[in-house]
Amino acid sequence: MAQQHLDESKAGEVLAAHLRAQATEFLRSLRLHRESTTDAQGAEESLEAARALRRAARRIGGTLHTFRPLLDQEWATELRPELAWLSGTLAREHAYATRLERLLDALHRLSGAPGVPAPPDAVDAQAVGRRSARRNGWAQPTTPGADEPGGTPRGLTVGAAKAAALLERQLTLARTRAHSTALQAFGSSRFHAVADNVAVLASEVPLSSSREALEPLAAKAESNLAEAVAALPLGQAGHPYNAEALVHGLATEAANEAQDAPWLKARALLRLHRYAQEVIRAGGDDLRLTDAGHALDRHREAADAASAAASAARTPRIAPATAYALGVLHADQRHEVEAARFDFHQAWLREAVRTP
Amino acid sequence: MAQQHLDESKAGEVLAAHLRAQATEFLRSLRLHRESTTDAQGAEESLEAARALRRAARRIGGTLHTFRPLLDQEWATELRPELAWLSGTLAREHAYATRLERLLDALHRLSGAPGVPAPPDAVDAQAVGRRSARRNGWAQPTTPGADEPGGTPRGLTVGAAKAAALLERQLTLARTRAHSTALQAFGSSRFHAVADNVAVLASEVPLSSSREALEPLAAKAESNLAEAVAALPLGQAGHPYNAEALVHGLATEAANEAQDAPWLKARALLRLHRYAQEVIRAGGDDLRLTDAGHALDRHREAADAASAAASAARTPRIAPATAYALGVLHADQRHEVEAARFDFHQAWLREAVRTP
Repeated sequence: MAQQHLDESKAGEVLAAHLRAQATEFLRSLRLHRESTTDAQGAEESLEAARALRRAARRIGGTLHTFRPLLDQEWATELRPELAWLSGTLAREHAYATRLERLLDALHRLSGAPGVPAPPDAVDAQAVGRRSARRNGWAQPTTPGADEPGGTPRGLTVGAAKAAALLERQLTLARTRAHSTALQAFGSSRFHAVADNVAVLASEVPLSSSREALEPLAAKAESNLAEAVAALPLGQAGHPYNAEALVHGLATEAANEAQDAPWLKARALLRLHRYAQEVIRAGGDDLRLTDAGHALDRHREAADAASAAASAARTPRIAPATAYALGVLHADQRHEVEAARFDFHQAWLREAVRTP
Repeated sequence: MAQQHLDESKAGEVLAAHLRAQATEFLRSLRLHRESTTDAQGAEESLEAARALRRAARRIGGTLHTFRPLLDQEWATELRPELAWLSGTLAREHAYATRLERLLDALHRLSGAPGVPAPPDAVDAQAVGRRSARRNGWAQPTTPGADEPGGTPRGLTVGAAKAAALLERQLTLARTRAHSTALQAFGSSRFHAVADNVAVLASEVPLSSSREALEPLAAKAESNLAEAVAALPLGQAGHPYNAEALVHGLATEAANEAQDAPWLKARALLRLHRYAQEVIRAGGDDLRLTDAGHALDRHREAADAASAAASAARTPRIAPATAYALGVLHADQRHEVEAARFDFHQAWLREAVRTP
């Protein structure tokens, strides 16, 4: 009881310290981002700053949600969706870049040279070139219909090379658009209102008069996660090669989305749980939670990549060889989804052993 | 030593009894097959008889190979390839039917209706219809370019339905040709020479004067298998979702064949080992060996099916949607290959525990 009472009296203090730290990080990243985008050499720093900004925005939003009884309700309720809008807008650009990289890597893997690994000068130079092109500013979308320069890249069949060119075109265009949207967002009055609110948070956290302790609120985040995980088909996921993720491989996208939804929900709740743990427990990541989170991140990325391959295959007038390569790629990524579910199952079981 | 001596003196007797029994089974199946093919209602019996004939031919051939020092060398050496030719010729027709069934089942699975299982009247009736059509004699190849009657079968997308129609056309044609070849083989003088040789075997097995025991020869078959299995990448196969089987998913067929070859070799040697065990141990299947064998059968069937999907995708002038579905199907079957390797690994580990 003494411990509980102590927790209650310190709850507001601990929460405010955490929010102030995250808000400070948000403002620091924002300043870095502004400086780096005006600097021609700063593309790498700009991406890093945007990542840190998103990271802080997600943590502030999650904390406002989980611990809202301890905060000014109206203020917290208004700020949270604005933070979600901001991190969502910033995340999109990054997601397209990651998706393209994942798909191109998969095409290279699927085209593995017979028996011998592809010569390092071919694959590595291409991969590095791709990565650095992506990091150093905004590659122009290639001309529609144009293949990669110099014809079929070494290690890729014609179909794979054409699929790679098509995906590069479509996802680079999407990414360029997302970049413009993000730039517009940074200049918008909506964004400035968010930044002002976070600046308030950095100096004075608007607490409510509630005397609730932090632990029961964090426990609620944990039980929400447990409930979502209990609804997952974990028995099936733990049985390797169950072929479940591809069961709608030739059906509609909606069928895959319905199948993936509970996993995406678990991912969102796992994040809220992790962020709540960060508030009540200073330092030290829970490795099992981190692994489970990585598996769900991989689930989402692979599902989105599979969807992008299917979508590219619906481009009018593509060659059958391109469509075939996109079909193989789609199935490959849906199997990555299945593999991610298996990994999550393994990580989660470890978790269950630790927590009685 | 007494046991060993007893074995040596009885070796020829045991071997002769086994070969006589298999030869009798061969001749019985051959008679049944002749009777059923002249009977219009006998397609089912004909298939069953051909299966029994192949089974006996494989066992006789395997026994001649493993225990050849105990047999008339020249005679055994000449008969074995003839038996392999016969069972190979008979197997081809069956293999095309199995492959088509596997591919059509996979297309149905991959087109799984969103959220709800396909109505039983749709999928089951189609599957049963397919199976019985295949069993009841020799379906004519469908007209090239024609889709399945009544348009898109329920539960299949357009691409999947077109892929199904294309595969049905190509594999039914291949199967019809294999059937003709098998019929020609049954009428050939080459076949009659094999049948005459087996008839000799049924009455009087041509033993050599060797006094070798059966066990060391059977042990050699077992060690040959162990050696082939030791050359397999079992560590990798035991790690689920290693994505190895699809690593050449977009490369040449030769790359897949090179990857699959050691598994096919293990399959052939596992059969020889099983047949040798049947000679020295009356009755009682070794369930672990059976499971390992089934996994390798599945490996071969899935690899052949994946190859058939890739080959169908090279048909000129197919629609992109068809090519896409064939790409998904190819990847799906290569994952079946990977799953079969995983299953083999599991079965083989069980085996290792039993045999110290």
